[in-house]
Amino acid sequence: MTPAQPDYFTEARSVEAVNGRIGHATDPRLAHVMQRLVAHLHAFIKDVALTQAEWEAAIGFLTRTGQMCDGNRQEFILLSDVLGVSMLVDAINNRRPAGATENTVLGPFHVEGAPEYPMGANITLAGGAETCLFEGRVTDLDGQPLEGVRIDVWSDNEDGFYDVQQPGVQPQHNNRGVFVTGPDGHYSFQGIKPVSYPIPADGPVGQLLARLGRHPWRPAHMHFIVTCAGFETVVTHTFVAGDDYLTSDAVFGVKETLVAACDQVAGGATKWRSRFDFVLNRVAG
Amino acid sequence: MTPAQPDYFTEARSVEAVNGRIGHATDPRLAHVMQRLVAHLHAFIKDVALTQAEWEAAIGFLTRTGQMCDGNRQEFILLSDVLGVSMLVDAINNRRPAGATENTVLGPFHVEGAPEYPMGANITLAGGAETCLFEGRVTDLDGQPLEGVRIDVWSDNEDGFYDVQQPGVQPQHNNRGVFVTGPDGHYSFQGIKPVSYPIPADGPVGQLLARLGRHPWRPAHMHFIVTCAGFETVVTHTFVAGDDYLTSDAVFGVKETLVAACDQVAGGATKWRSRFDFVLNRVAG
Repeated sequence: MTPAQPDYFTEARSVEAVNGRIGHATDPRLAHVMQRLVAHLHAFIKDVALTQAEWEAAIGFLTRTGQMCDGNRQEFILLSDVLGVSMLVDAINNRRPAGATENTVLGPFHVEGAPEYPMGANITLAGGAETCLFEGRVTDLDGQPLEGVRIDVWSDNEDGFYDVQQPGVQPQHNNRGVFVTGPDGHYSFQGIKPVSYPIPADGPVGQLLARLGRHPWRPAHMHFIVTCAGFETVVTHTFVAGDDYLTSDAVFGVKETLVAACDQVAGGATKWRSRFDFVLNRVAG
Repeated sequence: MTPAQPDYFTEARSVEAVNGRIGHATDPRLAHVMQRLVAHLHAFIKDVALTQAEWEAAIGFLTRTGQMCDGNRQEFILLSDVLGVSMLVDAINNRRPAGATENTVLGPFHVEGAPEYPMGANITLAGGAETCLFEGRVTDLDGQPLEGVRIDVWSDNEDGFYDVQQPGVQPQHNNRGVFVTGPDGHYSFQGIKPVSYPIPADGPVGQLLARLGRHPWRPAHMHFIVTCAGFETVVTHTFVAGDDYLTSDAVFGVKETLVAACDQVAGGATKWRSRFDFVLNRVAG
C-alpha cells in the first residue's frame, strides 16, 4: 500500500498506522489476529489513558513473569488462568449442546502413561485416610451407555500436592489411573477425597492477586480426560460439593454442572462416595 | 459482593466473573485499569475466536520475550514499540496545542551526564565524514525566544550505532552533548548527518516482524530533550528529510512536523545543515 499521504502515526489513527504496515504476503489468519490484537490493545490504552508510569510497571511485570518461567513453572499460563483467559479459550473451542458434559482447564499436572487398572481399583498408592469411591456412567446424549471409553483420572494427595510436585516423597503415579468402560458404560475407582490447594503464589502473578484482594486457592477437584472414538473428548474436573472455594476458584475452572455431591458413607469400604455421570457429544459429520 | 447466584464463569459472562473477584480494598486506579484490561482482553479473544494452538503460541511468544530481556536488552519495550503502544502512551500523555513541538519516543540510548558544550561545538569525537550543522531557535508559542533552555542531544554514528552500543570502539559520549540557550534562544552544534539503523531483530520481536512482512529499520534521526523552567519538556527527534524509512519507521516514531530538511552545503564548514525550531508549551497554572 502506498497511501497518497504518508500514514504517519497519530493518536487518532494509531490502529490504522500500525495495521497498515502488515505485508500482503502475511498468513491471513496471523494478519487478522494481529490486526484485532492491535485494535483492542490500543482501545484499552485509550480507554484508561494509561500513564507513562503504568506503562513502565506493565513492562516490568511482563518481564518478571517471563523470567519466572522454567521447565517446572509456567508463570504466563498462571497469568492467563487468573485473568480468566485460559477458561475463555477453552469455552470458545469446546461449545457443546445442553446436557453434554462441559470442559474445564487441563491444568499443568496431567501425565501421559499412567497405569491402566481394572474397574474398581485403588489409585491411591500412599496416604489418604479420606478414601473415596468415584463412580458413574458414560453415555451419549440419548442416555445410551458407551463401551470402550478411556477414562484418565488424577488428583492431588491429602496435602494438596500431585505426585509430580513431590518426586521422592510420593510414589510415581500416586492418585493417577486409566480405566476403560465395558458394555454397561459404568466406571468406578477408589481414590481419596481431593483437597483444596493454592496455585503457586510466590511470583509476579501471586503478587498481582494479592494487590487485587484475591486469594490463590482452587476448590478440591478430581481431573478427568474422557475419550471415546466418534465423540468429542471431554477434559474436565469434578468439584467436591460444599468446598469453600467453589465460587472463588483462582482460575475460574468451576462450572455449575461439574459440582459433584461427595457423600460420607457409613460403614462402607470407603469413607466417601462421589457420583458423576459423563455425557459425550458425538463428533459432527 | 455475595451474589444471590454464585457467579460461575461462563463464556457469556466471562468479564463479570473475573472482575467481580476484585476486593473492595484494592487501589481504585489499579482496579479500574485491571477491569478494563480484562474487558478488552476477553473481547479480543472472543472477536478472533482464539484457538487453543494460538493460545499456546502466544504463551510461548511471551515467555521467550521475557527470557530475551537482560541488563542490555528489553524485548518487551521493543514489542511495545513495534505494536505502536509506546508511541500511543507518549501521545496520550503529551497532548499539546497546534504549533508546539511534538514528542516522540525517548528510545533506549539516552545517557545522563553528557558533556555540556558552548554553542556551535562539535559533538562528534570520532569518525563521521558527513558532518552536519544542527541549528535553530527555541521560542514559546508567541514566537518569543527562550533563554536558559537546556538542549540534550544524541545520535548514532555513521555505522548506525550509539556510543553505548560500542564501548571501546567509540569514545564515551561520542555524538552526545548538552547546550544552553542565551537570550536569543538560538542553538547550534556540529554532529554528523545521522543514518538509518535497524532495531535489534535477532529475538522474538524480530521474528514477529518478519512473519508480518515488516522490516526493523528506523529512519535517520537526531534525539533531543528540550527543557525549560515553566514549560513542558519536549522529548523528541528530528528526522532527516528524504530518508527511505520516514513512512515506515519500525517503532512509528515519525511525526510529520518532526521531519527537518537536511541540505548539502557547498563549501561550508560542514557538509550538511539541518535547521529546526522548537516551540515550547507553557505549563498550565
